[in-house]
Amino acid sequence: MRTGSSTALLTDHYELTMLASALSDGTADRPCVFETFARRLPDGRRYGVVGGTARVLEAITRFTFGEEELRLLADREVVDPRTLDWLAGYSFSGDVDGYPEGELYFPGSPILTVRGTFADAVVLETLVLSIVNHDSAILSAAARMVSAANGRPIIEMGSRRTHENAAVSSARAAYLAGFTATSNLEAARQHAIPTTGTCAHAFTLLHDSEAAAFEAQVKALGVSTTLLVDTYDITQGISTAIEVAGTSLGAIRIDSGDVGVLARQAREQLDTLGAKNTKIVVSGDLDEYAIASLRAEPVDAYGVGTSLVTGSGAPTAGMVYKLVAVDGRPVAKRSSHKESRGGAKSALRRHKPTGTALEEVVHLASAAPERGEHDRVLPVPLLRGGQPVGAAPTLEEYRARVRQGLVSLPWEGLKLSHGEPAIPTVFA
Amino acid sequence: MRTGSSTALLTDHYELTMLASALSDGTADRPCVFETFARRLPDGRRYGVVGGTARVLEAITRFTFGEEELRLLADREVVDPRTLDWLAGYSFSGDVDGYPEGELYFPGSPILTVRGTFADAVVLETLVLSIVNHDSAILSAAARMVSAANGRPIIEMGSRRTHENAAVSSARAAYLAGFTATSNLEAARQHAIPTTGTCAHAFTLLHDSEAAAFEAQVKALGVSTTLLVDTYDITQGISTAIEVAGTSLGAIRIDSGDVGVLARQAREQLDTLGAKNTKIVVSGDLDEYAIASLRAEPVDAYGVGTSLVTGSGAPTAGMVYKLVAVDGRPVAKRSSHKESRGGAKSALRRHKPTGTALEEVVHLASAAPERGEHDRVLPVPLLRGGQPVGAAPTLEEYRARVRQGLVSLPWEGLKLSHGEPAIPTVFA
Repeated sequence: MRTGSSTALLTDHYELTMLASALSDGTADRPCVFETFARRLPDGRRYGVVGGTARVLEAITRFTFGEEELRLLADREVVDPRTLDWLAGYSFSGDVDGYPEGELYFPGSPILTVRGTFADAVVLETLVLSIVNHDSAILSAAARMVSAANGRPIIEMGSRRTHENAAVSSARAAYLAGFTATSNLEAARQHAIPTTGTCAHAFTLLHDSEAAAFEAQVKALGVSTTLLVDTYDITQGISTAIEVAGTSLGAIRIDSGDVGVLARQAREQLDTLGAKNTKIVVSGDLDEYAIASLRAEPVDAYGVGTSLVTGSGAPTAGMVYKLVAVDGRPVAKRSSHKESRGGAKSALRRHKPTGTALEEVVHLASAAPERGEHDRVLPVPLLRGGQPVGAAPTLEEYRARVRQGLVSLPWEGLKLSHGEPAIPTVFA
Repeated sequence: MRTGSSTALLTDHYELTMLASALSDGTADRPCVFETFARRLPDGRRYGVVGGTARVLEAITRFTFGEEELRLLADREVVDPRTLDWLAGYSFSGDVDGYPEGELYFPGSPILTVRGTFADAVVLETLVLSIVNHDSAILSAAARMVSAANGRPIIEMGSRRTHENAAVSSARAAYLAGFTATSNLEAARQHAIPTTGTCAHAFTLLHDSEAAAFEAQVKALGVSTTLLVDTYDITQGISTAIEVAGTSLGAIRIDSGDVGVLARQAREQLDTLGAKNTKIVVSGDLDEYAIASLRAEPVDAYGVGTSLVTGSGAPTAGMVYKLVAVDGRPVAKRSSHKESRGGAKSALRRHKPTGTALEEVVHLASAAPERGEHDRVLPVPLLRGGQPVGAAPTLEEYRARVRQGLVSLPWEGLKLSHGEPAIPTVFA
């Protein structure tokens, strides 16, 4: 969605019928606190990474009901005329606090807290959750991949395997997590993410021979380009690539087969041909496990698609947006075992003197526990009276935060295998 | 994304560098055929349902490069000035054929075929795949849920668990599959899908008592509304609901616990209270298996969220867009075992005289097999010279097509358990 257009209808019908009911009985103005948190991490995951915060804040500024939105609601009789009048004048004027985007989170971490009247805050539920559930799922999966790649570059190329707009947000999340670049051009426009790309198999198939395709590509994109060598026969493809481009060829890409074995063979062949600086890029259904399994192989960069944009088995972060306080009084659903704790909360993370995280302490905002020298308060002010607090972080700041978070985890926390959260959440 | 804005940057960088290379060596004008198909169905699925076709056709009409798009490509040096000139004049003028949206598909089914010059057709790859991979994944999962619900209504309420724009397309896909309504208001605006919704737990928690919340809701929304009864204690909640609304209450909703057991108890309680016509809606992490397991229970409608918008374990359809013919000559990648068959193809589905599907016959377009009385040619013309062929189907026509498709499956094909495709694909 383009900047400037309204986000107000990206909302569940019931947010507005609740509003209508609350306006009708006078409860709409009660001061409320809504908290966004995950009851648990996706199956076996050891940490999550908060994603989407900046997009949420931006989307809230566009959450206003113009003529077109109001007409739809009126025509469909979603709400009564009084509620339409209220919506016509709406723009969020409450406060938002939250974990900075790129921060780690654990079960129960209050990653985004919205304070305002019931009316002001309830209408944002769907939009807030859509964004943080999607972006956190992708950012969390991406962080595992970056960690598995152990310093080698990863290129995000999953646009074709997800919704066309989710692709743009996925590219952003991957970049915040530490990916090098994306294939998605709209991510360059909307989020200033670097893009990259060269050729697909179709380009080779278009030509009368592989050599003709490589010649055209090198002529157009230069010898620093990446030639895709697995259209017909990889060994032949590599020979042809070096014949055409010379030993200064930037890289070859292998997109099929056992890429570990093939990378080793390709490295030997390239070295023998004198192309010792030609890099090897591998792609083709890679996920964090495949990336980790390639650590010992002569791979210079990874291209990752499907697994990134689908959250590598966890396509949504499963966060909820719960009313936890009304008029300063804690409230909570009580009918089931679902984790629900009333009262406005904050959190701090305790660390060893070495900087290693020890535990996530979630506590009532009104009763902060003693804070040690190495503890860190996690939520920061994001909106006050509906207005942004401070300047938006740069892309580099987000990336640094994710890096620092991963470094702070106890070593078991970086294991890819299924397990418990890397640190426990303590409810104080 | 609003109608009217360009879709051109929802594209992988390499589509444009391929274009640049092809323009530079004169191959850009070669007549090409690209085919969209799934090599396999998601793990264990017995059929897929084509989704997104109408959205693809609409997005193609907006695939044009305006000043803003060209400036981004120039500033980032994605392509050379000659390519920018070409893109400035681009709008798709080729032909598209495909399976009608809502049609069943199987491995290898050529669900969307794009014919044009290489340049015309290659640039559409990412956009086409993003849309059909997302929408087909959701539509396929939704069809299984509709089939499991066996005539009972299902409401789509998953917006909060997927990207905010994917939510809108998911709501559409669910409705095409036979869902009754969605919670997503933007789906009403963009796609004229019916919406519904009443209240969440927050509304009850906002009030001083459950009774006060129910009174406010009934006053605002009428006695035909659905009261959410599981905030505190379900038995008490149902008593209160009937006390407040009377025995003409439209429905109650249960969103937690073992909804089968709870529905049975609720039905008895409602009947005892004289509310024999008050319906029971259940929700809370339902998927097709949970829906099927509730068939024997007194449930009147289902609310489905997370599992729908995440494709119930298969969040992408995994379709590819492959160049299969250049200048009328078949082409195909040959280096791996991946299923790739050169040549422009068509398909027909053979049926028994009873209408039950027998097999999917995928054949070279130039060599159609004999067509029996009960066989049906699957692809239809969608664009000619870039222009739509015929009027767009109505929502009801899509829904009827999905229904007919499911009825035509052999009975094993409707089993929810993992298995082989319901009918074999025969490559003739």
